Amino acid sequence: MQPVMDVPALEAFLDAEFPQVKGDFTVEEVGPMRARIRLNVREEHLRPGGTVSGPSMFALADVSIYLAVLAMIGPKALAVTTNCAIDFMRKPEAGKDLICEAKLLKLGRVLAVGDAMMFSDGKAEPVARASLTYSIPPK
Amino acid sequence: MQPVMDVPALEAFLDAEFPQVKGDFTVEEVGPMRARIRLNVREEHLRPGGTVSGPSMFALADVSIYLAVLAMIGPKALAVTTNCAIDFMRKPEAGKDLICEAKLLKLGRVLAVGDAMMFSDGKAEPVARASLTYSIPPK
Amino acid sequence: MQPVMDVPALEAFLDAEFPQVKGDFTVEEVGPMRARIRLNVREEHLRPGGTVSGPSMFALADVSIYLAVLAMIGPKALAVTTNCAIDFMRKPEAGKDLICEAKLLKLGRVLAVGDAMMFSDGKAEPVARASLTYSIPPK
Amino acid sequence: MQPVMDVPALEAFLDAEFPQVKGDFTVEEVGPMRARIRLNVREEHLRPGGTVSGPSMFALADVSIYLAVLAMIGPKALAVTTNCAIDFMRKPEAGKDLICEAKLLKLGRVLAVGDAMMFSDGKAEPVARASLTYSIPPK
Repeated sequence: MQPVMDVPALEAFLDAEFPQVKGDFTVEEVGPMRARIRLNVREEHLRPGGTVSGPSMFALADVSIYLAVLAMIGPKALAVTTNCAIDFMRKPEAGKDLICEAKLLKLGRVLAVGDAMMFSDGKAEPVARASLTYSIPPK
Repeated sequence: MQPVMDVPALEAFLDAEFPQVKGDFTVEEVGPMRARIRLNVREEHLRPGGTVSGPSMFALADVSIYLAVLAMIGPKALAVTTNCAIDFMRKPEAGKDLICEAKLLKLGRVLAVGDAMMFSDGKAEPVARASLTYSIPPK
Repeated sequence: MQPVMDVPALEAFLDAEFPQVKGDFTVEEVGPMRARIRLNVREEHLRPGGTVSGPSMFALADVSIYLAVLAMIGPKALAVTTNCAIDFMRKPEAGKDLICEAKLLKLGRVLAVGDAMMFSDGKAEPVARASLTYSIPPK
Repeated sequence: MQPVMDVPALEAFLDAEFPQVKGDFTVEEVGPMRARIRLNVREEHLRPGGTVSGPSMFALADVSIYLAVLAMIGPKALAVTTNCAIDFMRKPEAGKDLICEAKLLKLGRVLAVGDAMMFSDGKAEPVARASLTYSIPPK
């Protein structure tokens, strides 16, 4: 199954619906059941020592899987995060953006489940991994 | 076992170490293996419709259990979040602060585990619940 | 809201529908949005050293919240576990049953969320804690 | 980094240390930071309708990542599961074994984190996914 929204459509949706996070995220790539999203790391995402904060990583995982879901089912759906499990494994590198590889493992009628692997830009080892569940409301 | 940091000590620590979140959180109460923390909800914590965002709830759970740990072991420790599982159960009420009741279930030599129950201020039913694990570095 | 199934009704349901676990569990108490279930620990639940195995603790958490849900919505529903997050915090005591205190935090139309705290019989500190989500199929 | 235990060494370890699960699991493959383990599904792993039970899937995930850790650090280590988050996404096929692809995402000095993807034998879509954390005791 091919996505029904492409990169510009997802970015336009994000700008229109989530003005609070404008500029935080860049949609780098979208494909069947997957998306790659960049967190444009700025001062407000940091903790002492220059590392990206936990809430910023959570936000990246959440928006990435949300966009991967929307890419498949279209912009009208109002999916809601019901659950997240996240493992913080390594300290993100100071001064680097974070890249999230989001994959949908299930896209059901009422629930979607996705996996988000996050990396400091250019690094091979993940800094964090999250799985999220979204509830998809009936049409 | 009694806490070794009280409310003013925790607030001073938060202000000094986490200037990025200054004013976001109020330490309402601290006790043995527990703390109550308020998220002072502002525009930046909201999503369309006036509901508190997922990342803001994650941040509240994370800081609450972190402070409950520090209250017991003192301000010098550098505890790191290794894991979080969070369930989003109800939509927070528009225009209300969030209150987090944090309880430590385990405070070991290398790992601490806490439970964070979050409520819209004045409501009895939780909006979200999280469990978090912290790694406590050796002295 | 009061439960619609009592202890004997839940035990009869368990025996009829889950013959594979016959004798493993005892329903000790049921109330509004909660239940207390005992794992009758036997050789097959143990690991070397006499400690209860992780899968046995998972099974106890799962059945406890399942029964707490059924107690509220009746035996006809076919609830399915969609998600579990479990923290193993202490080694269970050798030769002791495990007691699970299950509480429902949410009982919605399509999703139920419960919290399971597990103790070695007679001890105050939890050995493990789990949160589980169940999908409740439409009528 | 290459594994220090191969398939026969892992199977011998499992037989010696976990006689309770003898015959349940087959080590199919082991590699750097990964292992593939088969659950030999039998009557005792099933639920009504012939589907594999949740606790059996949990046990498969747990043993798979445990063996992937031991393969890297050797049989003497006493790693303990501290945390598991598991998503149940599809009903396993009746009459099929389950295959678990376990990958280590982190193998630190005190904590290891792994990802377990589980499939009905021969199927491409996962039935469940788990992430687990192990505490590795100091030497």
